[in-house]
Amino acid sequence: MLSNSEIKRLRSLREKKFRDESGLFVVEGEKMVGEALNSSFDVLGVWRTEEIGETAMSKITQLSSPSPVLALVKQAGKSVPERFSGLCLALDAVRDPGNMGTILRIADWFGVERVYLSPDCVELYNPKVVQASMGSIFRVRISTCELKSLCGEVRAGGHKVYGTLLEGDPIYSTTLESEGLVIMGNESEGIGKELRNEIDCGLRIPSFGNSGAESLNVAVATAVTLSEFRRR
Amino acid sequence: MLSNSEIKRLRSLREKKFRDESGLFVVEGEKMVGEALNSSFDVLGVWRTEEIGETAMSKITQLSSPSPVLALVKQAGKSVPERFSGLCLALDAVRDPGNMGTILRIADWFGVERVYLSPDCVELYNPKVVQASMGSIFRVRISTCELKSLCGEVRAGGHKVYGTLLEGDPIYSTTLESEGLVIMGNESEGIGKELRNEIDCGLRIPSFGNSGAESLNVAVATAVTLSEFRRR
Repeated sequence: MLSNSEIKRLRSLREKKFRDESGLFVVEGEKMVGEALNSSFDVLGVWRTEEIGETAMSKITQLSSPSPVLALVKQAGKSVPERFSGLCLALDAVRDPGNMGTILRIADWFGVERVYLSPDCVELYNPKVVQASMGSIFRVRISTCELKSLCGEVRAGGHKVYGTLLEGDPIYSTTLESEGLVIMGNESEGIGKELRNEIDCGLRIPSFGNSGAESLNVAVATAVTLSEFRRR
Repeated sequence: MLSNSEIKRLRSLREKKFRDESGLFVVEGEKMVGEALNSSFDVLGVWRTEEIGETAMSKITQLSSPSPVLALVKQAGKSVPERFSGLCLALDAVRDPGNMGTILRIADWFGVERVYLSPDCVELYNPKVVQASMGSIFRVRISTCELKSLCGEVRAGGHKVYGTLLEGDPIYSTTLESEGLVIMGNESEGIGKELRNEIDCGLRIPSFGNSGAESLNVAVATAVTLSEFRRR
């Protein structure tokens, strides 16, 4: 059973303010709850419709059609900064939660070492980010930090900073190191002006034929870019 | 000005039934309306909030926050079947409108000759498909047909049928012809069982590291696959 105060607490986590205050978030669906339980995240509670009833579930769910199971999970703490290594991804002001979640899933697939988020990205524990990540939010290592100082650190460690730019070099014929930082930018503005100066190697995904498309979605561009790094 | 009957007609196009009956659909936003006007599609009317007022626009819009401009567009007729050529894409039961629209944008970017849809794909003129395509719906050539007989035709013309399969060959090390048909499957089921028998060359996008991700989103997988075909 769920008490009224528990229902209130779970409902309140629909709002960023209460997620920030409590350091908690909610995940829903068999697959996602399973992933949470199998991860290093602390799961503080699990509720099933068959135990608490449909009325209670409809009050606490964040989905338009409630799933049969919901879990309360503790957000990951700030991880201790460590030496930069491997192939990493940085997101500059990615605002759409669906894009952010999809990018985490892509980073997971391509075995990215760590994903760095600029402080003005969409909140990591936004329910739409969590669901779109399909569980990858529990596996990928993620840090929020100032990307400009991160770029300095990357270079100090002897690595390159890559970024997707409309005026970049065609990615298929550019030399890509196996380690380094790849920056992806905001949905409409791309990578911020100041941060662009930090890029050692600008990359562009060429279009083909008489394409009239102006751009690729940022998640799609991330996948094509990481695929190019990994295949070599 | 907009008469009540015009408002009713435009509103009715939110529903598939009325889109099917009338052979019309609605596009919204400066960019999309501009793309429609610059395309070979017939634009039957354009309404701007500054002319018709916010109340009227709020009645006819299909968006949660209305855009300043909306156009009524005639659906493309069934195109005459032609000899299969070039690099083409086939979608088998892709059901999510966001995925379908994103795939059209990707097909446009990579200069795909034609996109074939199985009859059980999401409706092409679903407003979410139209908006997610970012105008590519007006540029990419699209046909709906039985994919099984299409595969026969492709092979009869001396081309190969490719398809993404979990048990396929790693795409990075597989020989890919510059022409052929690439089949992408349903979001959860992949390519239908019967259609799988038609595939000459199964392709798989390898995962890297200790990835726990089970799959890539179908639009993301389409982009990585077409990128591999085009870069070579």
